[in-house]
Amino acid sequence: MKVVITGAAGFLGSRVADALLKLDSPIPVKKLILVDAILPPKRNDPRVNVVAVDLTSPEAALNLVEPDCDVFFHLAAIVSGHAEADFNLGMAVNFDATRSLLEVARKKVPALKFVFTSSCGVFGGNLPKIVTDMTACHPQTSYGVQKAMCELLIQDYSRKGFLDGRFVRLPTICIRPGAANKAMTSFVSGIVREPLNGQVAICPVDREQKVWISSPSMVVKNIIHAALVPANSLGLWRGINIPGFCVSVDEILTALRKVAGEKVVSLVRFEKDAEIRRMLESLPLNFDNSHALKLGFGVDTDFTDVINSYIRDELKQK
Amino acid sequence: MKVVITGAAGFLGSRVADALLKLDSPIPVKKLILVDAILPPKRNDPRVNVVAVDLTSPEAALNLVEPDCDVFFHLAAIVSGHAEADFNLGMAVNFDATRSLLEVARKKVPALKFVFTSSCGVFGGNLPKIVTDMTACHPQTSYGVQKAMCELLIQDYSRKGFLDGRFVRLPTICIRPGAANKAMTSFVSGIVREPLNGQVAICPVDREQKVWISSPSMVVKNIIHAALVPANSLGLWRGINIPGFCVSVDEILTALRKVAGEKVVSLVRFEKDAEIRRMLESLPLNFDNSHALKLGFGVDTDFTDVINSYIRDELKQK
Repeated sequence: MKVVITGAAGFLGSRVADALLKLDSPIPVKKLILVDAILPPKRNDPRVNVVAVDLTSPEAALNLVEPDCDVFFHLAAIVSGHAEADFNLGMAVNFDATRSLLEVARKKVPALKFVFTSSCGVFGGNLPKIVTDMTACHPQTSYGVQKAMCELLIQDYSRKGFLDGRFVRLPTICIRPGAANKAMTSFVSGIVREPLNGQVAICPVDREQKVWISSPSMVVKNIIHAALVPANSLGLWRGINIPGFCVSVDEILTALRKVAGEKVVSLVRFEKDAEIRRMLESLPLNFDNSHALKLGFGVDTDFTDVINSYIRDELKQK
Repeated sequence: MKVVITGAAGFLGSRVADALLKLDSPIPVKKLILVDAILPPKRNDPRVNVVAVDLTSPEAALNLVEPDCDVFFHLAAIVSGHAEADFNLGMAVNFDATRSLLEVARKKVPALKFVFTSSCGVFGGNLPKIVTDMTACHPQTSYGVQKAMCELLIQDYSRKGFLDGRFVRLPTICIRPGAANKAMTSFVSGIVREPLNGQVAICPVDREQKVWISSPSMVVKNIIHAALVPANSLGLWRGINIPGFCVSVDEILTALRKVAGEKVVSLVRFEKDAEIRRMLESLPLNFDNSHALKLGFGVDTDFTDVINSYIRDELKQK
């Protein structure tokens, strides 16, 4: 199969690529096109092509969506904090570029499996205690609005047979390796990652603040699984709330203490940030995972395990 | 106040204009611009200007949204059946033209009250028995998708202070005067209107099929009321499910029999249409009206009254 990944230089995109290139990949990959605004790292695998492209340029979609393409993972996006600060850029990248890809697929590749990474940031407002598949999207960020608009388009393109789309709403991913970014939830990884590296981390919210999270490895598995779910089992809605679990800042720090000791935990400083708090408080904290689990998506449940896999997969590999 | 109405040559737009020009108008109108693709009928009132414009043309929004505008009622749309048949036209008129209006308002008139008529067609899929404000939008028509995308944009533009938007999800309006149109719910009016005119009407669904409706006069009042609701009472979501009531085809015909007799009712023929039935079955049938009623929106409840006001307001005036 020929597979394209946008956002392939990013944290999730590069890991989806890694997983697809492995021998045990659930999708048999003959050709893998890795796309990002900066050239994704080359790989020692003849199946891989790397492409640098600005998705907002008029010819980008035309060049990327080719008739022989089987699966298209569209992960490229401007993150939440950035989309909030620069509304026009968020609209151009998160919405218009996605629409262009869908339009080209409609004309050239109606059988295309189009997997889109949405976010639990499509939810917001006066949320019920437990979010289900029938909970309304009242996003309180521009990022959430842009993702929700893409979802609606993918839903309609799929219903009309223009392509075979599906979208996964990702929990906050923790622990992300690398540097902090402009996502409002960036600190959730930072308060574990930085102390483990002997650095101070700033927590902009209260200890009691809860977050809905998934580990990177589970999210990568679930994004790939989204391409494999039969269309007819999705029913009348092409979206899946990816399973996650609810954890408080306090529980994160307790797990960190258990794994790495008090000295490491003491590197976390609390400095409140009203805007991050506002955006975060609008996010859902607990979901009913049952629909996604029934469709074969996976879930991790223990934060200590999440820290241990981060140390094993990311810190020890360096 | 200066008020603009798009779709002003249409059934609802012209009635909103009538109501705003009356002495007891809840909005004190100094200038009223009536806009449509065809020139709206001139009125014998010096406050009124009529404009014919194609909303999909690049300069339309720039010309229509002027700095001295106070309230903008955006009613223009391609109806559901038409948007389903011509996806590109639906996207251009229902979505892109709305986005252009919002963009110009953002740049020129951030205090603008922007009232958008959405539809209960934003709902669909596996709906709960009673739809509330927190029910998800899983639209099963392109029309519903386009309206839902506009809602999200208006929500975000309002949250960010780009303008002061609010959108009302309209029930099926019954009884519409005039000719049948391409709306999938057009027959709901047709099975009353045509027999009252001595003509045969086709009902494309079963007698048991239910619909969620409102009378034209109540919907017009509610659209105008949407401009008057204080922004802060809307809270975190700028959308209102306009109150309506649930009635079956059978109940409609029973009321028609009561008002006009068996001979009139016998003019209704049942000829099933699978596509109309599919689209209609995806619509919600019952709502929790409480939030809208609390905000001061009105509701009518008796279908016999609805028929009688149609005869009084529309048939006798001719």
